[in-house]
Amino acid sequence: MNAVSDIATGMNVLLAPTPQRWFEVAGERWGELLIDHANCEKKAASTALSLIFTYPEDFALTDRISRLAREELRHFEQVQKLMRELQVPFRRLSPSRYAEGLRRTLRTREPQRLLDLLLCGALIEARSCERFEGLVSVLQQPMAGLYAGLAQSEARHRGLYLRLAETRAGDEDWRARLRVMAEVEADLATSKDPQFRFHSGEPAL
Amino acid sequence: MNAVSDIATGMNVLLAPTPQRWFEVAGERWGELLIDHANCEKKAASTALSLIFTYPEDFALTDRISRLAREELRHFEQVQKLMRELQVPFRRLSPSRYAEGLRRTLRTREPQRLLDLLLCGALIEARSCERFEGLVSVLQQPMAGLYAGLAQSEARHRGLYLRLAETRAGDEDWRARLRVMAEVEADLATSKDPQFRFHSGEPAL
Repeated sequence: MNAVSDIATGMNVLLAPTPQRWFEVAGERWGELLIDHANCEKKAASTALSLIFTYPEDFALTDRISRLAREELRHFEQVQKLMRELQVPFRRLSPSRYAEGLRRTLRTREPQRLLDLLLCGALIEARSCERFEGLVSVLQQPMAGLYAGLAQSEARHRGLYLRLAETRAGDEDWRARLRVMAEVEADLATSKDPQFRFHSGEPAL
Repeated sequence: MNAVSDIATGMNVLLAPTPQRWFEVAGERWGELLIDHANCEKKAASTALSLIFTYPEDFALTDRISRLAREELRHFEQVQKLMRELQVPFRRLSPSRYAEGLRRTLRTREPQRLLDLLLCGALIEARSCERFEGLVSVLQQPMAGLYAGLAQSEARHRGLYLRLAETRAGDEDWRARLRVMAEVEADLATSKDPQFRFHSGEPAL
């Protein structure tokens, strides 16, 4: 399977679709989804910020990533507004296995690490985009409306991470590396998972 | 000395003005100032984000602090744009003693810690505002122009941190606590300092 097409034409980096069962559970457990989603937006901003701290000399990167971080924070505010409106109180949720699973694929030496971080960003944004799109038809308003808008943002973010990866890959075949990481991502997002979260696998609850 | 007036009337929380010598050195070492200033904006965003992670159930706080973090990130982008225009390349600078000195005043138990974090934020914003205002007359364009605008933002942020502190102080006399912390702040910002940074003391170079 080669799901890697061209960045400019809306490259699809995901190697497997989210299981239908995940969407069904999401429709039932939308309150929990919203809380975990708020956490994801905070974490996306935090991850972006840590890229800025780690690669401060790369102005083109830090400038674009700073804008992305601002957008993630705005999404966080929107999700929290919805939590208030829908009277979903905050409660602490343990994180899903997803981010930690992806993090384990990161190589430790530069410049490979930067490439992996950017590809990791692209994969997370791609999965988020795919789930937002699928959620629009299983959720009611106003959540469906917000998620339709967010799907578009995540597609842009995916493109940004891919362009940054492409221009910072040096001699490495970044598409080949993306495919390796995408295999791990697809497994995390589709294999049986006892937990239900925004990025969890097929619900085995 | 009681420099603590009313929040609504533009409360001045600083107990001592920045030494004139600091402004003179800033006029000479403006490139270094700009690099350190970019670092400060990143750190301000990062500190804001950590407040959001630490107090996730306080929606009114996280919402306002998220907006503030976005503003700090936009300032970071503006400073970096200026670095490009003025051809100031990035280089790593050790942090000043200021933030660490203030951090040492923080109490560890809640709810005192939250109050201290908010007062700390107010003090840093107040000092930044005071320095931006003073820098406008010692720097050339386009730095002077940017700093005039930033002074206004920092004044708003100071007000935000103070209002949050006031509403989350409970039974504690937050003005008294502010005065204790402001003493430490004034000493850090005005006593002899071998380093020159955005928040350093009187230059002893």
